[in-house]
Amino acid sequence: MEAELRTPVKLNAAIKQTLAGIRPINEDRRHKAQAHLDCLTKPLGSLGQLEAVAAQYVAWREQEPPRVAGKAVYVFAADHGITDEGVSAYPREVTQQMVGNFLNGGAAINVLARHTNSDIVVVDVGVDADFNGAAGLVHRKVRRGTRNFAREAAMSEAELNAALQVGIDLAAEAAAQGRTLIALGEMGIGNTSAATAITAALTGRPVAELTGRGTGVDDQRRASKSQIIDQALRFHFGDYSATRPDALDVLRCVGGLEIAAIAGMVLGAAAHRIAVVIDGFICTAGAAVACSIAPNAGGAIFAGHLSQEPGHRALLDHMQLRSLVQLDMRLGEGSGAVLTFPLIEAAVRIYNEMATFESAGVSEANEA
Amino acid sequence: MEAELRTPVKLNAAIKQTLAGIRPINEDRRHKAQAHLDCLTKPLGSLGQLEAVAAQYVAWREQEPPRVAGKAVYVFAADHGITDEGVSAYPREVTQQMVGNFLNGGAAINVLARHTNSDIVVVDVGVDADFNGAAGLVHRKVRRGTRNFAREAAMSEAELNAALQVGIDLAAEAAAQGRTLIALGEMGIGNTSAATAITAALTGRPVAELTGRGTGVDDQRRASKSQIIDQALRFHFGDYSATRPDALDVLRCVGGLEIAAIAGMVLGAAAHRIAVVIDGFICTAGAAVACSIAPNAGGAIFAGHLSQEPGHRALLDHMQLRSLVQLDMRLGEGSGAVLTFPLIEAAVRIYNEMATFESAGVSEANEA
Repeated sequence: MEAELRTPVKLNAAIKQTLAGIRPINEDRRHKAQAHLDCLTKPLGSLGQLEAVAAQYVAWREQEPPRVAGKAVYVFAADHGITDEGVSAYPREVTQQMVGNFLNGGAAINVLARHTNSDIVVVDVGVDADFNGAAGLVHRKVRRGTRNFAREAAMSEAELNAALQVGIDLAAEAAAQGRTLIALGEMGIGNTSAATAITAALTGRPVAELTGRGTGVDDQRRASKSQIIDQALRFHFGDYSATRPDALDVLRCVGGLEIAAIAGMVLGAAAHRIAVVIDGFICTAGAAVACSIAPNAGGAIFAGHLSQEPGHRALLDHMQLRSLVQLDMRLGEGSGAVLTFPLIEAAVRIYNEMATFESAGVSEANEA
Repeated sequence: MEAELRTPVKLNAAIKQTLAGIRPINEDRRHKAQAHLDCLTKPLGSLGQLEAVAAQYVAWREQEPPRVAGKAVYVFAADHGITDEGVSAYPREVTQQMVGNFLNGGAAINVLARHTNSDIVVVDVGVDADFNGAAGLVHRKVRRGTRNFAREAAMSEAELNAALQVGIDLAAEAAAQGRTLIALGEMGIGNTSAATAITAALTGRPVAELTGRGTGVDDQRRASKSQIIDQALRFHFGDYSATRPDALDVLRCVGGLEIAAIAGMVLGAAAHRIAVVIDGFICTAGAAVACSIAPNAGGAIFAGHLSQEPGHRALLDHMQLRSLVQLDMRLGEGSGAVLTFPLIEAAVRIYNEMATFESAGVSEANEA
């Protein structure tokens, strides 16, 4: 098999250094945070998942009292060679057009960022268009779209490293700006195909059960999309469900430039102890690769929403993550992540501001 | 059977007038709202439940552009005679103590109200304590707790009318204050027993499968709680799963004063075209009675969260409602309702602020 002959992907020194700097979540802090939550004036555990979120945030940030500052969403845009195979309902130029919409403030993510008092950072990491230095856009184009992964590797090793570095650099900048909580999102016509390929390769599950409608293909096109992705994985990795190829190799061969940048930003954010809310299927694919090469990064991650894409649930299960909301969304852009900022902030405020049974003079539960 | 001999509950003229003023949701507006959502720069339907929320809000409020103003949560507190049977993990005085906590700003609902920029209105509709005219509390006590519904009707007809009127009056006040979106909540040791009894009577489902741990009873006490509720329902209504007693009669015999006030506020809010977010099991029981006597009120209702109490899902299914979040919460106070204000506001802002395909110059999906 080709897979057995491959050499591992080489990472640049700067990226290796980032990986080395990712410490695990502080379990001692998590236990102490839960003990504090247990003293607050509410039945034990009655705030459910909000309590788990608060405890994770405290244990990750290692700051007492915990604070949320500098909220922002990073939207990474790139094009995909796989669109040559007709896998998407939308024409390729929509990636470029939607970047324009982001810069003009008219997209869903702009509305949600404004609504949650968050900054929005739009990053061109590989759109097949020339933005001519447009203001308000972070210009870090690695390549005008990936290669068609049905026929060749989506990226070279150098391109993969460059795309990862984009995310790492932005995380360093976010840390310098004092951000403690960020959301990640993406825009890229064709990128559900890349995410599906990554998910099948990482989980070993069959492509057919992971393939969804993306932004809206019909049943016939979904079947053809599934077949194209399955064949591409076999072309690159042979029997991928048996061999389980290396995550970085998967990202290079069938991923996307925006997915790689997201993986890089998860790693960089984790190294800087920033909490990261991931969005839907595509974003989670990037985070899954990041956690695959640096499991400690998992401590940074909060799953925003559960997408309608069938692969998303498989990937969240694989990562042992539970999403905060399940609203049948399938938009991307970071929309399902930013939407949960108020829930995470609520959890942190509950932790900081509620009275204890003792301070409020409220009786505790009777012994059973 | 006793049930067959009963006379229907008589409602006061003012309440009947409120009922007569509740118009159905405007389906024409709902279709137009969805048509507008379909023009926005996102794949068709890709904002899932948020789109349904936006369309319902627009169709209910009948205001273009839709606005959210004067958000508030109303927390109704009352005690329950059924606590004499040992159905709760907490002593009865916790109701009074938690009202004190609300007034001092230390409870979860205070934190969440502050977090969502909402007012909080705490209403004593039947706490077994004298608050001596405490400032910041709405004093509308009907009775110092209901009677023990295991032995007699929880309320008289006059008391039921008075408790309903409390909610109706507060809704009128809310309308006069320009509120468009309110959340309802409750505090009352023992009130999961009342809600369980109401749910069994309205849905015809067996008490055993609806009975949960409330604020935290163990398995043994849960079994005994279930048996007490089942016997009480048989005492009042005979074979309740077959006879399906009248909703108002159920509310009077096994309900609570805060539950009746919540039912009244749903009715009043519906008459004033205010949108209402309901909280967990107890609050939903009040809303279910309201919708049972005035089905048009359903247009006003948004289900906030899905509680961990097993009866809550049964009741939401019965009302054909889908909750916005599922976070394993079981606190009450309106916490799971207020937590979803930012989601509802996000939906309204999406409706108002996103660009259309045409205005943004973005290509639409290819025909399949």
